[in-house]
Amino acid sequence: MKIIDVEEHARFSQEDRQLSILHDSPSWRVLTFCFEPGQELPVHSHEADSEVMILVLSGEGSFTDGEKEYPAKPGSMLLSGVSEPHGVKAKTRMQVLVAIAPPI
Amino acid sequence: MKIIDVEEHARFSQEDRQLSILHDSPSWRVLTFCFEPGQELPVHSHEADSEVMILVLSGEGSFTDGEKEYPAKPGSMLLSGVSEPHGVKAKTRMQVLVAIAPPI
Repeated sequence: MKIIDVEEHARFSQEDRQLSILHDSPSWRVLTFCFEPGQELPVHSHEADSEVMILVLSGEGSFTDGEKEYPAKPGSMLLSGVSEPHGVKAKTRMQVLVAIAPPI
Repeated sequence: MKIIDVEEHARFSQEDRQLSILHDSPSWRVLTFCFEPGQELPVHSHEADSEVMILVLSGEGSFTDGEKEYPAKPGSMLLSGVSEPHGVKAKTRMQVLVAIAPPI
């Protein structure tokens, strides 16, 4: 059993979004992204059957499928096949939890 | 792409913890448990190779492996093989996110 304080993995930089891997196993990869206002995970997709979950932990921003934007605040969750276009953009300083199963 | 407001799935009952399934697929099962103070997910384990993640969204309580208790607050995460003993207990009204990959 591993106990993690996800907030303790929050690292912000004006340069770019910051990534911290929390867990990596055959089941999934769990990580956190921290964004300064305006920073983003641009819309992208991967050729794989895995699924991705993105959960906002703090701050506000938006999810996108490349066509529409969906407002995102703490508790907002995106669930998608990794092969479908998906992205995140921060309006305020924002931390999100990301899980990918199985890992790619 | 599916957008979920996890807070909207919060249901509490004095009778017992409340479970709401958010997503079920070959990759994983994602759900939320809501606890009134003192309610718990008793220590248990499953004979499977899957892994479980439990993330506190609101409220306070503790995680346990059946031997030791670990204080849990928003942002606290438990990661464990489902075959290892794991449990959660609420001190205040508490909502947690649970993901199991692959689903069992």
